[in-house]
Amino acid sequence: MSKFVTKRVLCAAIGALMIGGVGAASAQQAPMMDQKAPMAAPMMADRAKLLTQPGVFGNFSIYKVRPDYMKLSAAERKAAVAEAHMVIDKHKEKVIVDTYLTRGLGASSDYLLRVHSTDMAATQAFLLDWRATRLGMHSDVGENLVGITKALNYITKDKSADLNAGLTSATYSDPAPRYAIVIPVKKDAAWWNMSDEQRLKEIEVHTVPTLQYLVNVKRKLYHSTGLADTDFITYFETADLGAFNNLLISLAKVPENKHHTRWGNPTVLGTIQTPESLVKTLSGM
Amino acid sequence: MSKFVTKRVLCAAIGALMIGGVGAASAQQAPMMDQKAPMAAPMMADRAKLLTQPGVFGNFSIYKVRPDYMKLSAAERKAAVAEAHMVIDKHKEKVIVDTYLTRGLGASSDYLLRVHSTDMAATQAFLLDWRATRLGMHSDVGENLVGITKALNYITKDKSADLNAGLTSATYSDPAPRYAIVIPVKKDAAWWNMSDEQRLKEIEVHTVPTLQYLVNVKRKLYHSTGLADTDFITYFETADLGAFNNLLISLAKVPENKHHTRWGNPTVLGTIQTPESLVKTLSGM
Amino acid sequence: MSKFVTKRVLCAAIGALMIGGVGAASAQQAPMMDQKAPMAAPMMADRAKLLTQPGVFGNFSIYKVRPDYMKLSAAERKAAVAEAHMVIDKHKEKVIVDTYLTRGLGASSDYLLRVHSTDMAATQAFLLDWRATRLGMHSDVGENLVGITKALNYITKDKSADLNAGLTSATYSDPAPRYAIVIPVKKDAAWWNMSDEQRLKEIEVHTVPTLQYLVNVKRKLYHSTGLADTDFITYFETADLGAFNNLLISLAKVPENKHHTRWGNPTVLGTIQTPESLVKTLSGM
Amino acid sequence: MSKFVTKRVLCAAIGALMIGGVGAASAQQAPMMDQKAPMAAPMMADRAKLLTQPGVFGNFSIYKVRPDYMKLSAAERKAAVAEAHMVIDKHKEKVIVDTYLTRGLGASSDYLLRVHSTDMAATQAFLLDWRATRLGMHSDVGENLVGITKALNYITKDKSADLNAGLTSATYSDPAPRYAIVIPVKKDAAWWNMSDEQRLKEIEVHTVPTLQYLVNVKRKLYHSTGLADTDFITYFETADLGAFNNLLISLAKVPENKHHTRWGNPTVLGTIQTPESLVKTLSGM
Amino acid sequence: MSKFVTKRVLCAAIGALMIGGVGAASAQQAPMMDQKAPMAAPMMADRAKLLTQPGVFGNFSIYKVRPDYMKLSAAERKAAVAEAHMVIDKHKEKVIVDTYLTRGLGASSDYLLRVHSTDMAATQAFLLDWRATRLGMHSDVGENLVGITKALNYITKDKSADLNAGLTSATYSDPAPRYAIVIPVKKDAAWWNMSDEQRLKEIEVHTVPTLQYLVNVKRKLYHSTGLADTDFITYFETADLGAFNNLLISLAKVPENKHHTRWGNPTVLGTIQTPESLVKTLSGM
Repeated sequence: MSKFVTKRVLCAAIGALMIGGVGAASAQQAPMMDQKAPMAAPMMADRAKLLTQPGVFGNFSIYKVRPDYMKLSAAERKAAVAEAHMVIDKHKEKVIVDTYLTRGLGASSDYLLRVHSTDMAATQAFLLDWRATRLGMHSDVGENLVGITKALNYITKDKSADLNAGLTSATYSDPAPRYAIVIPVKKDAAWWNMSDEQRLKEIEVHTVPTLQYLVNVKRKLYHSTGLADTDFITYFETADLGAFNNLLISLAKVPENKHHTRWGNPTVLGTIQTPESLVKTLSGM
Repeated sequence: MSKFVTKRVLCAAIGALMIGGVGAASAQQAPMMDQKAPMAAPMMADRAKLLTQPGVFGNFSIYKVRPDYMKLSAAERKAAVAEAHMVIDKHKEKVIVDTYLTRGLGASSDYLLRVHSTDMAATQAFLLDWRATRLGMHSDVGENLVGITKALNYITKDKSADLNAGLTSATYSDPAPRYAIVIPVKKDAAWWNMSDEQRLKEIEVHTVPTLQYLVNVKRKLYHSTGLADTDFITYFETADLGAFNNLLISLAKVPENKHHTRWGNPTVLGTIQTPESLVKTLSGM
Repeated sequence: MSKFVTKRVLCAAIGALMIGGVGAASAQQAPMMDQKAPMAAPMMADRAKLLTQPGVFGNFSIYKVRPDYMKLSAAERKAAVAEAHMVIDKHKEKVIVDTYLTRGLGASSDYLLRVHSTDMAATQAFLLDWRATRLGMHSDVGENLVGITKALNYITKDKSADLNAGLTSATYSDPAPRYAIVIPVKKDAAWWNMSDEQRLKEIEVHTVPTLQYLVNVKRKLYHSTGLADTDFITYFETADLGAFNNLLISLAKVPENKHHTRWGNPTVLGTIQTPESLVKTLSGM
Repeated sequence: MSKFVTKRVLCAAIGALMIGGVGAASAQQAPMMDQKAPMAAPMMADRAKLLTQPGVFGNFSIYKVRPDYMKLSAAERKAAVAEAHMVIDKHKEKVIVDTYLTRGLGASSDYLLRVHSTDMAATQAFLLDWRATRLGMHSDVGENLVGITKALNYITKDKSADLNAGLTSATYSDPAPRYAIVIPVKKDAAWWNMSDEQRLKEIEVHTVPTLQYLVNVKRKLYHSTGLADTDFITYFETADLGAFNNLLISLAKVPENKHHTRWGNPTVLGTIQTPESLVKTLSGM
Repeated sequence: MSKFVTKRVLCAAIGALMIGGVGAASAQQAPMMDQKAPMAAPMMADRAKLLTQPGVFGNFSIYKVRPDYMKLSAAERKAAVAEAHMVIDKHKEKVIVDTYLTRGLGASSDYLLRVHSTDMAATQAFLLDWRATRLGMHSDVGENLVGITKALNYITKDKSADLNAGLTSATYSDPAPRYAIVIPVKKDAAWWNMSDEQRLKEIEVHTVPTLQYLVNVKRKLYHSTGLADTDFITYFETADLGAFNNLLISLAKVPENKHHTRWGNPTVLGTIQTPESLVKTLSGM
C-alpha cells in the first residue's frame, strides 16, 4: 500500500490565494509548507496555473458515505486513507484535487471534491479511480457539476475600468480560510436575452457591494451552460461566515437576483481539509 | 461507558426563556433544576449567552432512524443512550445541544437537533461525533440548515420605537413549552430588492398581529442566506399549538407572505425532550 | 398477547355520522354494533366529541410496508394483528384511531391512520407505539399531516344564514361510506391577504355547489397552517366515488381554486377498515 | 399450482376495439382467438361493456421490479407466471386486467397494469392479491392513478353535431396496436373556471386536428378529479408511434395546452402483452 | 461464453460522421477501422442509414451501477464484458448501440446507452436483454427517453434557403469527438401555439449563431412529444467542450429560450466509449 507520497506533492502546490486563484487545503497544512519548494517536480500539474488561468475545467462532486462503510474493519478503513492518497498521487500530473468535509453543515453530502484539469477526460479518469477506492465505493454521488474557467468578460479594464481597479486593488487579508461554499447559479431566459450592455450594467451593480468583501471572502467562477444543469458554479472561501452571509445578502439585493432560477440547490458548505484528514474523519479514525 | 455526567450540566444552563433567548429541554427537567447552581462550571459553553447574543451559529438537523437500528441488541441500544450523553458532554465547552422528538408529528424526520456555538467548526465536530454514535450511525439526515444570529435589524428602538416597546414589554406567561417548531423561510428577489424603508414597513405590518402571541409563543431567528438554501430559520416554542396555528395564520395574512418562496418544506414540529428521553424513546427502551 | 379487547371498545364509539362528525370504520362493523352500549366506559376517549368539537387535533399519517415485512414468519405476522389492537387499546383513554387501506388506490401509501386527541403529545405517544409494533417497524411514513379542528368561521348563522341553513338541513343518506379521501390544501398569499369579507364571499361561492352532495359525501376540515406544510386537511367519506368526483369538479370550477398552491400531493384514497382487517390484509392473512 | 385456466378466459373477452372501447392484449393473441366463443361464461366480467360504458373505474398502476426478484430460483420465477394467471382468474368475475411491458421505453416503470371494474373495492382486492404474488411482492409501485369513465360531455350530438359525427364516422384501420401510452392530464384553475360554452369551444378546437388520427390511434378517457392527483387519465393504443407523436404535437398546438399543469409526469409507453408474456419476460424465462 | 464476436461487427458500422449522422464510439477505435470493409454483412442494421434517415427511433437510457455489482467475483465481472458484446451482437440485425461513460461528469448516471432502430419493439427487446446481463441486472435506470427522427421541418431549402445552405456547407473538421452531451428540451404551450411562420422565424434566429459551431460540434435531433416527458432530445458530440459551452450560451441568448420548460434535467455529459471499454471500466477491470 502506498506511503503517503502525495502528501508533500499536494502541499507543494499551495500558493498565493487570490481572486481567480482560490486554493483550498491550506489552513490545516501550515507545518508542511516548508516542504513545498524542493518537491515542485515538473511532472506535476501546476496548481497555481490551474487555479488562475482560463480554459481549465473545474469538477465539483459531492458524496454521501453509505452506512455500510463503517461496517468495514478498522484495518480496511485505515487502508482507505492510503488509497485516497494513492489515487490523488496517480493522477497528479494532470489533475489537482481539493477536499472538503461537509457532513454536519448541510444535508446533501458528507464530503465535496473539487478537481481541476485542462482535460475533462483526465478529471473523469481520476474520479473513476476515486470511486473504485474503498471510500469511493461506499459513496453515493449527490451532485456533480462541471464548468470551465474563462477570462473576466464583464468587469474588464476596457469595459468597466473603475470596478476592475476595485476588484484588483483589494486582496484577502483575513486568516487563512477554514470554510468553502459552492453555490450553483442558473439564470433565466430574460437574463440571457439582454444585450451585452444591459448585462454589463447589471454586473456592475452586482459588483459594487461586493468590493468590501474582497478582504475576507475569496471567490472563483466556473461556466457550465450546456455542461451541467447550471449556468455557473460559484466557489467561495472564507474564515468569516458572518461576512459571507452579509456578502450573499448584498447579492440578493441587486436586480440581477430577479433572474436567478437556481441559486444553490444545493448550497454546499464545508470545512477545508487535507485528503488525509477528510478520509480519516469519515473513516472514524 | 460514561455516567450521565452531562445531564446536570445541560440542566444548569437552562435559564430565563424570553424572546431572543428561547431555550428548549425545560419542561421535562423540573426535578433537576435544583442541581443547577453548583454545576455551573467555567469550562462550559454559556447557554444563556449562546441563546441571546448575536454572532452565534445555529445548526438545525433532522434525522430518520433506519429500521436496522431496532435490530441491534437491547444492550447496544441501551449503550446508545449513554453514548449520546458522552458526546454532548465531550463538546460542552463549545456547543450546546437541544433535542426534539419529531416522529409522529411530521413525515420528514424522527428527531431534530438544534446546536449552538460561536464556532461553526466546533458544531461540525459535535455533529461528526453524533453521527459516529450507535444512534447517529443508524440515522439518515433529512435536512440540515445553518444560520447565524444577529441583532434586531428592523424593529429597533430607533427605527420603530413603539413596536420595539411592544416586543419587549410582553413576556411568555404560559406553562413551559412542550413543543418546538422550525420553519425555514426564503424570500424572493422582489423582497430583497426593496429599499430598507419598504422592508421596514413590511416588517412593521408583520409585527403588529404577532404581539398578542408573545405570551404563549416564543420565537428566535437565524440568518442563513448563502449558508444554506434558505434565508432564515424561524424557531418557535409553545405549549399551545392552537395559538401557534393562529399566529402563523396572522403571518399568512400580511403582504410579506407574497414574497415567500419557501415557508416550511419542511415544517418541523417536535416535542421538547432531554437527550436521554429522546434516545430512550427512539431506542425502544 | 392481548385478546382483542379493543375491538368492542372501538365499535362502542361509532355514533351518528354527520357533517363535522365523520367517523370511519363503520361499514365493516355492523355485526358488532350491538355490543356498543354496555362497553361505553368512562375511561375511554369520547369518539363522538372528538369527531365533532373544535380544538381537537387530527393527525393523518400514511405508510408503505417494506417488503421485508412479508419475510417474517406467519406467526409473527399473526401477532402483528394482536399488537395493533393492543396499542390502540393502550391509548384509548386519550386517542381514537381510524384505519384505512390505501394500497392499490394510490402510489403514495399502503395504509392511512387518522388519529384524534385533544393532546398532540398523546397522539405522538400512540404513533410512537404504533411504529414500535411489528407492522409499524416495517412501515415507512410517506406523509404525516397535523391539524386542529375549529368552529365554522365563514358559513355561520350570523355571517351567511341561508347557506348555514343549507349546510345543516341536509344529511348523509347514502349507504354507509366504504371509502375515505384525504386532500391537503394550501392557499396562496393572495388568498390570505384578502379581507375577511372577500374570503367569506369566496367561500359562499364555494359552498353553493357542494350542498347537493351533503347526501352522499361527508366532510371534515382540519386547520394546519404552521403545524405542517399545508393550510388545511380536508377529509371525506363516501360510498359513491362518482359523486365524489363530481363534487371535486364543482370545487375546481369556483374562483377559490385559483388560490390553491397545494390540492392533494398526495390525494389519499382508501377503503375504510377496522384495524383488524387492515393489519390482516397487509399481513397476508 | 394453477394450469393457466385464465388464459382462455382472458382471450374470450377481446372484442371489437373501437373508440371508447380500446382493448389491450390483442396483437399477441391471434392464434387463440378461435377459443373465444365457447369460453364466454356468464360468471365473467363483460370486457366489452367495461371498456365502453360510463361509470366504470379504471385503475392504472406502474411498477418496478426490485433486483432481488432475479435472485429467486428459476422454479420460483416460473411459478410466478402461474400465480399471475391465478390471481387474474380469481377476480375475473368483477375485474378485467390488461398488462403492458414498459421496461426500456421509460424510466418510471417496468410494467403497467390497467384494471377495470364497476366496483373500486373489487379492483383494490385484485391489486392486493397481485401484490401478494411473487412478482408483486418484488414490485415497487411508481404511480397509481384512479379514474372513472363518463359519457362524452362536450362533443355530443346536441352540442357539437358535426364533430360528433366526425368522431364516430372514422374507425381504427391500422394493424392491431402493439403499443399503449398513458398520459395523466391536470388542468389549471383558469380552465375549470371557464363557462361550459368556453370549454366546449376549446374542446372543439382540440378535436378538429385529432380526427385524422382516428384511423391509427385509439383513445380512451378517465376522469380523476379528487380521486388522484390528476384530472384525467388519457389512454392510447397504436401500431404507429410516429402518427401518435404527430397527434400529440397537434394537441400541443391548440390553446387548451396553455391550461395543462400536468401532461405526463410520467408519460408511460409500453408494449401490449398478455399476462403470460409479461411475467415470463420480467422473470427472465 | 461468447468470444467478442460483436467487436468487429460494431466497428464495421462506423461511418462518416456528419450532421444528421452523428456516430459515437469512434475515437477509441482507430486501430480497428481497417477491419471495417470486409465485415459489412447484409444481416446487420445499416448504421449509416439509421443515423441519417427520418423515421428512426432513438432511445436514450442512463444508468447507475449499484454498489453490489463490485461485490461480484472478478470472474463474474469479466464475464459481464463478454455478455455485453453478446447482447449487442444478438440484436445487431435490428438495432445499433452506442455507449458512453458518464460517471464523474454528472450525478445522474454512470453510463448512457443510445439505441437506434426502425422498430421500437426491437429496441425494447435489446434493452430487456441488456437489463438481464450481469451489469444490467446491477444497474438502475435514471432516465429513459424515446424519440423519432424526422426530416428538417424549419430550415429547409424551400422555407429558409440561405440558412439551409449554411447548415449544409460547413462540416465538422475538429479531431474525432471524445464527448457526447444529451439535453432533453420541452417547450411551453405559447411556443406550440405560435403560427408555423412565427416558429420558423424563431428557429432562424436560433440557427444563425450556431453555424459557426458546425466545425466543432455535431448535433442530432429526436422528436419525443407524447412518447416521453420531453418534446425533443438533442444530442451533441464534440472534442471541444469550451466551444460547446459557447454554443449553448449562444442558444440561451435567443428568444426561443423563453419557451423552454425543460432544458436538461438531466444534462448528460459522457465520454464516447466502445462497449468493451465501458463495461471494463465500470467493472473495475
